[in-house]
Amino acid sequence: MNIKGVAYKTEWVEYPDIEALAKKIGAPPTSTNADGSPLYTLPMINDPNTGKVVADSFLIAEYLDATYPSGTTLLPPGTKALMAALEAGVIGGLGSIFLHQLAISCYILNPSSEKYFRATREANYGRKIEEFSPAGAQREADWAKTKEGLVAVDGWLSKNGGGKFVMGDNITYADGILGGWMTWIKITNGENSAAWKDFASWNGGRWGTYITNLQPFATVL
Amino acid sequence: MNIKGVAYKTEWVEYPDIEALAKKIGAPPTSTNADGSPLYTLPMINDPNTGKVVADSFLIAEYLDATYPSGTTLLPPGTKALMAALEAGVIGGLGSIFLHQLAISCYILNPSSEKYFRATREANYGRKIEEFSPAGAQREADWAKTKEGLVAVDGWLSKNGGGKFVMGDNITYADGILGGWMTWIKITNGENSAAWKDFASWNGGRWGTYITNLQPFATVL
Repeated sequence: MNIKGVAYKTEWVEYPDIEALAKKIGAPPTSTNADGSPLYTLPMINDPNTGKVVADSFLIAEYLDATYPSGTTLLPPGTKALMAALEAGVIGGLGSIFLHQLAISCYILNPSSEKYFRATREANYGRKIEEFSPAGAQREADWAKTKEGLVAVDGWLSKNGGGKFVMGDNITYADGILGGWMTWIKITNGENSAAWKDFASWNGGRWGTYITNLQPFATVL
Repeated sequence: MNIKGVAYKTEWVEYPDIEALAKKIGAPPTSTNADGSPLYTLPMINDPNTGKVVADSFLIAEYLDATYPSGTTLLPPGTKALMAALEAGVIGGLGSIFLHQLAISCYILNPSSEKYFRATREANYGRKIEEFSPAGAQREADWAKTKEGLVAVDGWLSKNGGGKFVMGDNITYADGILGGWMTWIKITNGENSAAWKDFASWNGGRWGTYITNLQPFATVL
């Protein structure tokens, strides 16, 4: 919303309340659980200007471009497939710290979300959250692998001509993707943590600089 | 060149002759061998209009857009990083048949290229070309894994609004990437082979249709 430049008001929702809220406002499920049941996820938007309810980041971006064409274009013409490829590539690059990220995310949730998140993720991965990424050799190896995985992402970004954002000088949905993942890592590890400081320094400090460039769009309203 | 819409004349070069030709016309190496020595690769272009010599597909695309701005834009503004992410994603999706592809490529080369290709690839992978992907369970598993890998690529393309090309209705360098890999698979396996017919049918026939859509750009001049 900040990138698009449209006004909004955030309502924070605890994990166990997402499904009921989605059903109440008419947001469809965005995916399915392992058992085939519908999965309702955030973000979802409820646009009072149009009465439309949309869930799923990509669909929200499409909706905002279509509904508010005078704002910043999130998905420039023809880029949708490329954006999806970028998302897969970023997730792939960060893949080996994903379990660590889930664990430390769990620890900072409010109690009702913590309970829900722990139960669902422990069921998904068949082990206790505390065993997702215990400190030590395995976690260090996972971080090292992520550092290696980001070399490719850094290589892609280096082709953009030195602009601040994925598409160069213009901020787009691509920065929602990359910035979203990077912000998750920053916030969950802690802005002043050794882990984030290390991460931010990789690839010539690209990730720290990138997150700084996104600061003007990072305020949650 | 066909996509860009500029005139050209192809000169076919056998593998062992690439380095000498590159040095003769002043094309720089595009990469390094495992031993650190420079690696010279095709494609390279020698533009008689400007006297410029460029090697590496991506750099050639950048050069053509800069030099011939009135032709089709290969790299629409801001898309370079996204194109690179797409390329990595396509290579990732096809990764498990890569060794098979190398083997069957070797078998159809002219003798001098066959000898060079065999020696360098056998050194890279530490085994005989015939052992890269012997017929049987392993090859079948590799094909199955590729079919699975392409589900993601199909998902990305399905976001483009139904256009013929990666970026929708307009052909771009993204089709040079995706079309290049797909054409390699088609030609080396044989257009009428069971393998290509199977491959072309995956994802609702997307790959067969896609290659057909690229036919107008496939004539080598």
